[in-house]
Amino acid sequence: MTIEKFINRRASAINIELAGLIKRIPACHSRLREAMLYSLDAGGKRLRPVLLTATYELFGGNWREVLPAACAIEMVHTYSLIHDDLPAMDDDDTRRGRPTSHIVFGEAMAVLAGDALLTNAFSVLYENSKVKNIKAIGVLEAAGILARRAGAGGMVSGQAGDLEAEGFLKRRKLDRAAAARLLDYIHLHKTSDLITASVEMGAALAGASSKDFKTLSEFAGAIGLCFQITDDVLDVVGDKKKLGKSGSDARNAKLTYASLYGVEPSRVKAAKLIALARKKIGTLPCPADRVKVLADIAGFVYSREK
Amino acid sequence: MTIEKFINRRASAINIELAGLIKRIPACHSRLREAMLYSLDAGGKRLRPVLLTATYELFGGNWREVLPAACAIEMVHTYSLIHDDLPAMDDDDTRRGRPTSHIVFGEAMAVLAGDALLTNAFSVLYENSKVKNIKAIGVLEAAGILARRAGAGGMVSGQAGDLEAEGFLKRRKLDRAAAARLLDYIHLHKTSDLITASVEMGAALAGASSKDFKTLSEFAGAIGLCFQITDDVLDVVGDKKKLGKSGSDARNAKLTYASLYGVEPSRVKAAKLIALARKKIGTLPCPADRVKVLADIAGFVYSREK
Repeated sequence: MTIEKFINRRASAINIELAGLIKRIPACHSRLREAMLYSLDAGGKRLRPVLLTATYELFGGNWREVLPAACAIEMVHTYSLIHDDLPAMDDDDTRRGRPTSHIVFGEAMAVLAGDALLTNAFSVLYENSKVKNIKAIGVLEAAGILARRAGAGGMVSGQAGDLEAEGFLKRRKLDRAAAARLLDYIHLHKTSDLITASVEMGAALAGASSKDFKTLSEFAGAIGLCFQITDDVLDVVGDKKKLGKSGSDARNAKLTYASLYGVEPSRVKAAKLIALARKKIGTLPCPADRVKVLADIAGFVYSREK
Repeated sequence: MTIEKFINRRASAINIELAGLIKRIPACHSRLREAMLYSLDAGGKRLRPVLLTATYELFGGNWREVLPAACAIEMVHTYSLIHDDLPAMDDDDTRRGRPTSHIVFGEAMAVLAGDALLTNAFSVLYENSKVKNIKAIGVLEAAGILARRAGAGGMVSGQAGDLEAEGFLKRRKLDRAAAARLLDYIHLHKTSDLITASVEMGAALAGASSKDFKTLSEFAGAIGLCFQITDDVLDVVGDKKKLGKSGSDARNAKLTYASLYGVEPSRVKAAKLIALARKKIGTLPCPADRVKVLADIAGFVYSREK
């Protein structure tokens, strides 16, 4: 099975679970539920939940046991996209080829749909403590990881850095060193943190040793950064139809790897990160076929076209 | 010690802890941290964390043990106020006598400050698992309660119902039965759910029996509903200076208890709820002096002037 097929199959199972979880929320306001389902249903690669399940499998568990945690991280990712697209933020009208949440449901409901998905992620994650092979302490650690990496010291700070950088290139002559520092901060937190959380949560739920946890965390950090760099490059050179979005980085004069270093040097950097990630993951004392899945996902992150 | 003094003393300890927790978040974006601190520092009664700690004390624990959980619920409450005040939502320029977050920090940063406080609540709550007398399962239950009561089946749905009702009185002749149903839904979820969560979290962290948990949950539901009814009444008749906000309900033609039933019948309903709450709490097999604190807090909720 190719890695694309592996990812697609797993994504299908995750999609079914995601929709079911939202449909089963008791007493949920109907329009709010509709808005949550709309954004979750927008497709996407489901990279984060796939990474979480594949990491959990490294240690011998059945990946279906961590479906709740996998759905939790996708809910957090989806909430971040909804808020990111808001008029006050990136002001994007389309995402993955469809109108964004605030275009369809209005701005107020889009804010609430994001809030609800974020909160619900922790409710769903809690459900994972009812799975037989998973220890309470593993779920608590996973919740702590998700909250830290998605929150004020993680993804939200990356988003705040992004706001700070917006129009940077417009407003003043670029101080290259300061721009590079800010860009590293944004990439680390805005994208890499949540990808790292996926892998770390899988490891925590599996009860991985601290040594293996650290190796996996470094593996994830490298692919997280690679993911954002390729995203920046795709925003410049990518096929708009394949991407399903409208190159808003250039329109907003955003600080990106592509704008700061150029397209080719960015590609070289991304390739180096993936080589590092593959090397790291190769040192794990886990079954070779399961390690290979994660190495292949790393390769997929580098070579994807959307 | 009067109940006001009790509440104020405890609120002071909570305020110190809240500020410390935000200041210690590693790698937090500086402007984002400032925005979080600004809204947390806006005063307020700290009713929810006080309720959480007083409930925990019923079962013999030291209230300082649940300071993390107490701060978590206040962070969730504060995030909800920031998002509630946004231009796309209630569009309030002042709150507790000060400019709202989006007026000071801009709309984008206000969205992010809310997101960060919500996410951080779960990070802080996780810290409670490191306290010696608190069991992992208690923290997991508390996290589940917070996520459910604050999320898509709770507070956020109440907010969505509120949006639905906005302008209700303007747009069409009021169908009284439908309006009453919608109002009950809004009150239950928008306000009562988070107050109920405070009490339930305190009980879960203390390892209360399911019978005591149920009694406390009913107690909290009654004071939660009373709190919203008195809020509605105060928006109409309250002293603007004491309230520190600008009577936006009437300006937005909101569906409230006061607008639907009138001020006096609303006051009678609130008094009945508090009597019910006091009766419920009196049946608990806990030390009388600790039960009295919760009964007095119920009285305070009814008689407060802001």
